[in-house]
Formats: sequence, structure tokens, C-alpha cells
Amino acid sequence: MEHFSSKLLQTAVEEFSRLPGIGKKTALRLVLHMLKQDSDTIGRFSEALMQLHKKVVYCKECHNISDNILCEICSSSRRDRSLICVVEDIRDVIAIENTGQYHGLYHVLGGIISPMDGIGPADLTIGALAERLTGNEEVKEVIFALSTTMEGDTTNFYLFKKLKVFDLKISVIARGIAIGDELEYADEVTLGRSIIYRTEYDKTSQP
Amino acid sequence: MEHFSSKLLQTAVEEFSRLPGIGKKTALRLVLHMLKQDSDTIGRFSEALMQLHKKVVYCKECHNISDNILCEICSSSRRDRSLICVVEDIRDVIAIENTGQYHGLYHVLGGIISPMDGIGPADLTIGALAERLTGNEEVKEVIFALSTTMEGDTTNFYLFKKLKVFDLKISVIARGIAIGDELEYADEVTLGRSIIYRTEYDKTSQP
Repeated sequence: MEHFSSKLLQTAVEEFSRLPGIGKKTALRLVLHMLKQDSDTIGRFSEALMQLHKKVVYCKECHNISDNILCEICSSSRRDRSLICVVEDIRDVIAIENTGQYHGLYHVLGGIISPMDGIGPADLTIGALAERLTGNEEVKEVIFALSTTMEGDTTNFYLFKKLKVFDLKISVIARGIAIGDELEYADEVTLGRSIIYRTEYDKTSQP
Repeated sequence: MEHFSSKLLQTAVEEFSRLPGIGKKTALRLVLHMLKQDSDTIGRFSEALMQLHKKVVYCKECHNISDNILCEICSSSRRDRSLICVVEDIRDVIAIENTGQYHGLYHVLGGIISPMDGIGPADLTIGALAERLTGNEEVKEVIFALSTTMEGDTTNFYLFKKLKVFDLKISVIARGIAIGDELEYADEVTLGRSIIYRTEYDKTSQP
């Protein structure tokens, strides 16, 4: 048990230490840092979180975090609407956008299939993806860009089985990324190249 | 430059990454974690910071962070008012309170003398401490509990010169703490012992 001279301080520290990877000491350091700043800092900080909390939504097309019903990427006229890149979460969208190599659309699964963590296909936006492709003549190719882990491979396999009924190319990003690496930590060159040299799935065999 | 699909998300991530030791990736991870929590979490979090921002004050006696003009320790009837322990900041108060070995009052300097960082005696609450001791018959001993670094030693020396005019015992916590260690990271046993075996300064010589 910690002894704080201020209940307000204690509450703020407790809130910070609820965050992943932030212990009590780090939380206290962060809160004391904020207290030392000019009076607007805490106001701006909590306002940013409040606004995020109240106004953020998920894009109804790609399920990415968005300010509007349709996200900036889905509503842009400069994106190639024949391509959909399937990713785990927004961090992968950011990573791929930063390569500057991809100009299609995305589909954010919201996770990957992981029986160990109790995450099954129903917990992801896979159904919504199938719905998005149904009767959609625009889309010519779906690219799987998931982490090259066992869970990523499982999800790739499940997605392939689910989507092979559609009349479109299904590809997976090139395994330029070392097996076992997390997508979001890959360097931009490797990640960019893995998008360019994506390999097409052979529908007659398993991926 | 990062590509975010949401300005609100971007703003929140930027606010988080202003905190010391928090990079862009960590900031994004923290914000995404908050978004995944139930809808009250962000509200509680920013409310805690807002309240801290609006209501926190510094105790007029010991200059510790406090909810009231007089902090809980200074206003407690169960503290030994004959002892004042001089510390750098609130983290040291928490560390000493956690030992359960000290029942006196504190004086929070708000830093230590560090010419390299441009912090001189005038930036600390040393004047206020001298004022607090002037004509105060209650206080019998002042204990210096600063980090055993060069800056801590400099501050000890300065404080000793400043306070030796007063008719009270001046002591320094036992050097059970290894030289060069930060006080707040000391283990509780060592820190508790260093308070019990504090050594009295000899007023006829230098500390």
C-alpha cells in the first residue's frame, strides 16, 4: 500500500497504473510530470481523451477507427477500390500507410484467431468482410497482411477457406518478414516490398 | 509522419507521447487499450486528471502535494511534531512513509541544488524551511533525507550551513544506502534502517 498525501494524486496515479505496462512508480512519475507543466497541459490531455471517448466510431466499411461513419481512406476518391488489404488492427494500417506502397482499401479484423486467448472467427469482422464482398463487382483482389505467427497463419487459412467462393484474386503479403515477427515492428522497406511481391493463393490447393 | 485514420485518435496519441519516456508506439498502444475498455474508463481517467488539475495545492507548512491548505501529515495529531524530515520531493515522502519507521513531519524542498540543471537554493523551499523553524519551539531535530548523490551532498551542506544557527539537532540519514543510488529506489528495509540510525551532524565541523 502506498501512502499518498493527496487523494486526488492517488486517484490519478491509480488511473495511470491501470494502463498496460505502467507500474505504480512510472504512473507517479507521469502524474508528477503533468503537475509540473503549465496549467493548460492537463486540460488539453484530458480533453483529447474525452473527445476521443465521445466521438470516435468504427468505419462501417473497413472497421478501422474513424471520426466519421466512413473513414478517410474508405471515403477517399484517390484510393484503388479494387484492392482490399486485410489487417489485424489499426497499428497495421498505420504501418502499411507509412510504407507509401499501398493505395487500396483496408479491412480491419479487430484481432486474429487465437484459441489460446479465446478469440474465434466470430469475434472478428470476418462475417462483415464476406458481406462487403458479396455482390461487390469493384473488388478484384483481397490481400492478407497478417503477422507471420501461428495465429496469423491460422487466420489466413480460415479467411482463404471463407473467401475462395468469391470470384477474385486472394493473395498474401510476401514472406519477406521473418517468421515469428510482429507486423507492426517490421521496417518500412521490408514491409513495402512484402506488399509489392505478394503471392497469389492457388485456389486448387491450401495456402 | 504517421498516418492516422482518425484525427481524434491522433490528438490523443500526441498528448500521450508528450509524457516522459512514452514514445509514439507506446502512446498508440495505451490509447488503443483505453478505447477497448468499457465506456466509463476514459471518463474516469480524464476526470481524475481534471480534478487533480483543478483542486491540488501545496501544503503551506511542508510544501508537499495536498488536497487542502494543510496536508494530511501536517494536520495529523498522531505525528511527532518535534521532528522534520527534509526530502527532495513527494516520491521520497511516499518511500519513507512506506517504511513505517518515521512518524515526524516533512519538509519538501521541491528539488535539490544542481548547478548543472540551473537549480539553485532560491528555487527550493529552503527559505520557507528557515522561516518554519524561526521561533518554533516544538521542533527538536531536522533530518536530512536526500539522495546520496553529489547534488544531495551539496544540498545537505548548504542546508547545514543555513540551519546551524537554530538551537536544534541536525542529522542526516545513515549512509546505509549505497553512494550514487536514488532514494526512491532504495528497498524499504535499508531506507527504514537509515532513518533509525541517522547520524547527528557535529556543529563544530563540516558535515
